[in-house]
Amino acid sequence: MLRLKSYVLDQWIDGEGEGETLFDPSTGEAVATTSTVGIDRAAMLRHGRDVGGPNLRALSFAERGALLKTLSGALHEAREALIEASMGNGGTPRGDAKFDIDGATGTLAYYASLGKKLGDRQFLVEGEGEQLTRGARFWGHHIKTPRRGVALHINAFNFPAWGLAEKAAVALLAGVPVVSKPGSATAVLAFRCMEVMVATGALPAGALQFLCGEPGDLLAHCEGQDVLAFTGSGSTGAKLRALDSVARAGVRVNVEADSLNATVLGSDVEVGSDTWHMFVQDTAREITQKTGQKCTATRRIFVPEAQLGAALEAIGEELGRVKFGRPGTDGVRMGPLATAAQKTSVEQGLGELVESGCAVAWQSKEGPAGEGVERGAFFPPTLLRCDAPHENARVHELEVFGPVSTLMAYSDAADASALVARGGGGLVASVYSDSREFVREVVLAIAPFSGRVLVGSKKVTGQAMGPGVVLPSSVHGGPGRAGGGEELGGLRGLDFYLQRSSVQGDRALLDKILS
Amino acid sequence: MLRLKSYVLDQWIDGEGEGETLFDPSTGEAVATTSTVGIDRAAMLRHGRDVGGPNLRALSFAERGALLKTLSGALHEAREALIEASMGNGGTPRGDAKFDIDGATGTLAYYASLGKKLGDRQFLVEGEGEQLTRGARFWGHHIKTPRRGVALHINAFNFPAWGLAEKAAVALLAGVPVVSKPGSATAVLAFRCMEVMVATGALPAGALQFLCGEPGDLLAHCEGQDVLAFTGSGSTGAKLRALDSVARAGVRVNVEADSLNATVLGSDVEVGSDTWHMFVQDTAREITQKTGQKCTATRRIFVPEAQLGAALEAIGEELGRVKFGRPGTDGVRMGPLATAAQKTSVEQGLGELVESGCAVAWQSKEGPAGEGVERGAFFPPTLLRCDAPHENARVHELEVFGPVSTLMAYSDAADASALVARGGGGLVASVYSDSREFVREVVLAIAPFSGRVLVGSKKVTGQAMGPGVVLPSSVHGGPGRAGGGEELGGLRGLDFYLQRSSVQGDRALLDKILS
Repeated sequence: MLRLKSYVLDQWIDGEGEGETLFDPSTGEAVATTSTVGIDRAAMLRHGRDVGGPNLRALSFAERGALLKTLSGALHEAREALIEASMGNGGTPRGDAKFDIDGATGTLAYYASLGKKLGDRQFLVEGEGEQLTRGARFWGHHIKTPRRGVALHINAFNFPAWGLAEKAAVALLAGVPVVSKPGSATAVLAFRCMEVMVATGALPAGALQFLCGEPGDLLAHCEGQDVLAFTGSGSTGAKLRALDSVARAGVRVNVEADSLNATVLGSDVEVGSDTWHMFVQDTAREITQKTGQKCTATRRIFVPEAQLGAALEAIGEELGRVKFGRPGTDGVRMGPLATAAQKTSVEQGLGELVESGCAVAWQSKEGPAGEGVERGAFFPPTLLRCDAPHENARVHELEVFGPVSTLMAYSDAADASALVARGGGGLVASVYSDSREFVREVVLAIAPFSGRVLVGSKKVTGQAMGPGVVLPSSVHGGPGRAGGGEELGGLRGLDFYLQRSSVQGDRALLDKILS
Repeated sequence: MLRLKSYVLDQWIDGEGEGETLFDPSTGEAVATTSTVGIDRAAMLRHGRDVGGPNLRALSFAERGALLKTLSGALHEAREALIEASMGNGGTPRGDAKFDIDGATGTLAYYASLGKKLGDRQFLVEGEGEQLTRGARFWGHHIKTPRRGVALHINAFNFPAWGLAEKAAVALLAGVPVVSKPGSATAVLAFRCMEVMVATGALPAGALQFLCGEPGDLLAHCEGQDVLAFTGSGSTGAKLRALDSVARAGVRVNVEADSLNATVLGSDVEVGSDTWHMFVQDTAREITQKTGQKCTATRRIFVPEAQLGAALEAIGEELGRVKFGRPGTDGVRMGPLATAAQKTSVEQGLGELVESGCAVAWQSKEGPAGEGVERGAFFPPTLLRCDAPHENARVHELEVFGPVSTLMAYSDAADASALVARGGGGLVASVYSDSREFVREVVLAIAPFSGRVLVGSKKVTGQAMGPGVVLPSSVHGGPGRAGGGEELGGLRGLDFYLQRSSVQGDRALLDKILS
């Protein structure tokens, strides 16, 4: 059986004992083990700060960008092997595996191109600055320099490749060394990605380390210049923020939490129109892609009262086309949940929603396709319906992290916006409409509650990505329930890793030292 | 005796019981009482969210700016009365009182002018956006809309006027209603400022509320769209961050904490030169202004080994010129500490530093000037010297919040930078030098540890403000020990109160709804 390792102090090392077992969720078969017992976390952080930081800071943005390009190229080269790793441990059909892996290479390539554009600099200067007092010489600039700590990246199980790469891309371009921890259950793919990246020989010593399994006391060693980026549940995020070692040292924290993402079908959209089809297809894809295990997946679907029946029928029909089962089996587009525990959690969550007053409105009657699936963590695409969205609090707060979404009716744009806001903050919301007035009202009303708003309309048919796609040029993160974080967004993403400082002094002198 | 009140739900109301007693720290005489017992904090927050928020969001930036201009003008009009309030409860001589009050009016006026520039908009759009996929129509923008919660402002005792006004200026311009809590011990001035602002009649209902004393359960009612801006000790800041109501809801937190701010005299600076004098005068001012009770005051002074004696003598001579005693007494430029408790804390802190190996190198031998000062909270300007700055950990971590600073020697630019960094993150550091190489090396090395770096050089003699002056156009806040916050900095300050959202869709449609 495959034995995973951690990459610590620029060496592959193994933890003590047998550690955790990783499974193929399609069959329940054990596929790998990993242990982090006995690994000296404090030494990892010190190595990042003392060796990785200076090495990265010595590079220009262009050089760091070239490093990212090398990593991206190597991962792309290894694509087939990585897809296999994803299918075998993540339960992902090829399409879902590619979504994760191509997201990783794409994000690395995007940040590589930003590095090239930033060129021969090692820190950033914001704009032209300004005169601070009546005299013309006393000038103020704002500069951004790499923090001197290490970036702790705690990733989720759902995107082993993308999660590792997108966070690392931004930190490395900023000039901050990384200690990355994958979600243990699906760590085979993250481990394979690390192997590929390490094998390039392009990583400066200490720039990227990898703790493959239990975090142990990793966060107890945080210092004031460190940053912590966490993707996972909001409740774990809140716990991390409150950790004494984190709160006391003033460690910067970014939390990316799953949320009750919503979609709204405009009252102007006619059944069967281009915009209608875009809404239906995007929504069905958001329910089934990655078996609904995306932090950006649509959990709440709001349609005008008059369209409720037609929407149910159309989305159900789309869901019915999605064959699910063991990845690799002919025609299978949706795999199992990532683990048996996730399956239990989805079953419980669905039960809670039903108890709260939601009804199962559509559910696939097929069983999973493929061989050896009897002990797999499969769950069929499921559409719920809630007839009292204002009265039902649970449907706006309980996320079922699987192929499950709830359809609800709204009365007008203000009502739809208020229902979206009931989610308490989301990573993404979408609005499908060709009415400028409807779009304006809803977008501006839900923006404070949304990290991203996708507007679907007939003009962007075939060009728009669905709401579940996280593009590196757009910020990823949302307020409140979604964790209050912000990742990516082009250069905006670097801010988390940089310290902004005002520099005041003689204008001519500052021009010379900052240019 | 004066009875202070809170401004709650657009009414002045009094708490139950006698509450807290406020004193004149020059004499120990009681001057006012205030109580917040029985005030419904949850109702205050709801009123801000439900009434203040909509009222402010209905205004354009220009209209919000006009509101700030009205508030600034009214405070300036009441300047003499406010100075008196400051002297009587804050123990501040006229110069220190003006520093606080003019800072308040100046910051309001500065943000008023930004509002005017932003004009007739109600939310912000960042730049031109960008194309997101191969098709030219699918476009991405980032917009910033006011958060729908309330801004909780917890201020410190040292700047009752400025603290209230600078935080309120930014939040109100952003379109977010405020609940402000002054430091109780010196709340008379904050109360007077609120009286003046309320009396203008310009404040929309719910836009600005004031809880004059004990916070009670104020923070227990936070929700996900609220923000919390705290100024005070780092340890209290860490506690607030970790509060369940704050961490769980994803409340945005900004902490502005006192820190071990440093100054560095360049190795090129000759005794008696213009730059030398600037260093000496700035440093002495930072020790004595506001009796050293500024979060930006210089606590650690680093000079080349060869200049240690000359620096000690010159700074001591400057300190000797600062007469201290009861405000209003002829020639008095430095008042008492703000409370008897602060005096005890300063005495204890000084004792600890001496125990750690620091020696008192200079201390005024005069007693406080003026009548009735026997029971005042006076403490003389004091300069310590530490001969083992690398071995002594306490001198880099224990802030004595009074007219106390420690002089230390460094060997070269790298050593000076490393010593500054030992503070673990500061609000401001300063460097006095005319050597481009020295300035470049030190500024870039200490920037990651500093929210602001002031460079003093002969070209800016008479134009530069000292390091202790917080200008609204420069960010105020620092990493790590300094709390990790960011206030002010022109438009940058608004970001804390706005939600940034990516908006994706048809370019032409977005242009119309966002313009």
